[in-house]
Amino acid sequence: MKKSLGAKTIAYPTPVFLVGTYDDDRNPNLMAAAWGGICCSVPPCMAVSLRKATYSYASIISRGAFTVNIAPAEMVAEADYCGIASGRDQDKFSKINITPVKSDLVDAPYGEEFPFILECKLLKSIEIGLHTQFIGEIMDIKADPKILGEDGKPDIKKIDPIIFDPGTRNYWSVGKHLGKAFSIGKNIS
Amino acid sequence: MKKSLGAKTIAYPTPVFLVGTYDDDRNPNLMAAAWGGICCSVPPCMAVSLRKATYSYASIISRGAFTVNIAPAEMVAEADYCGIASGRDQDKFSKINITPVKSDLVDAPYGEEFPFILECKLLKSIEIGLHTQFIGEIMDIKADPKILGEDGKPDIKKIDPIIFDPGTRNYWSVGKHLGKAFSIGKNIS
Repeated sequence: MKKSLGAKTIAYPTPVFLVGTYDDDRNPNLMAAAWGGICCSVPPCMAVSLRKATYSYASIISRGAFTVNIAPAEMVAEADYCGIASGRDQDKFSKINITPVKSDLVDAPYGEEFPFILECKLLKSIEIGLHTQFIGEIMDIKADPKILGEDGKPDIKKIDPIIFDPGTRNYWSVGKHLGKAFSIGKNIS
Repeated sequence: MKKSLGAKTIAYPTPVFLVGTYDDDRNPNLMAAAWGGICCSVPPCMAVSLRKATYSYASIISRGAFTVNIAPAEMVAEADYCGIASGRDQDKFSKINITPVKSDLVDAPYGEEFPFILECKLLKSIEIGLHTQFIGEIMDIKADPKILGEDGKPDIKKIDPIIFDPGTRNYWSVGKHLGKAFSIGKNIS
């Protein structure tokens, strides 16, 4: 018999996406967003939800673009800072010693030191409630060559992404390998 | 200098949501969906993206509801099976020995043996491309008492959720604790 926990926003795993934007004065900004994920395969799209009150909100609408930066576990304090401070009064790129780089494809900056980034062009804005969901078409992914495996594909253990637990508000790393997808379930029939 | 990987659907972490639905004959079905996540805090909402070709697609529209079931790492083969087989010709609940339970709040089934489930009422359907995104209001979360910590909150290590890596199509577990959110970043100023 299950216990009711109420209507809460808890799911596992939840990401820590660092959303990169330019404001109207071309100041680069980074904010941590946990509400998001891939939302379509063709065109390849990424969704991130932001409150209107955030500084990044107007930037995404104005520039029609954002990046999603994946920080490694060793930068967990820096990632957390991006969810605490506001771009209204802090230059977060500078505070966490990350170099902003103008994307060559969209009007938004990414962080040179982050191992894995997605460049997104705003496709749709969905009003839901407290949050507005921005759906961006993924124009390119750029990765640090150091995190690529021998097969040329990004290696999740080399990226070492952060997992957010919204239930207790804690950060976790990726653990052990469990199996190959679209494969280990084939024995069930 | 970063390497371009092209416009791909890769992000970290990506979930393995087992979406529970009833078809028009009230047959329960489960499908694995990796494109999704929490998308709004008020009302609390969850997004999952499905292709029109899936059997679950019409069920969500017809019933206006779905559940999101979080499988533990020890059920990774069962979860994978839910992404391989189709509800058109397989009773997936039965195949993986999971007991379907009718939600008391929405017109969809969840799996009794899953440790953590969300009951969602369909709020919006967003046509994006190959995938349609369903936004559901989270009406309740139900958890196995065994996965609750001493504070009454769900314990991510007891749930032991599966993480999907879309880049190489592998499954991973949650690893070690990295820090407290909205806290460890406070030292940066």
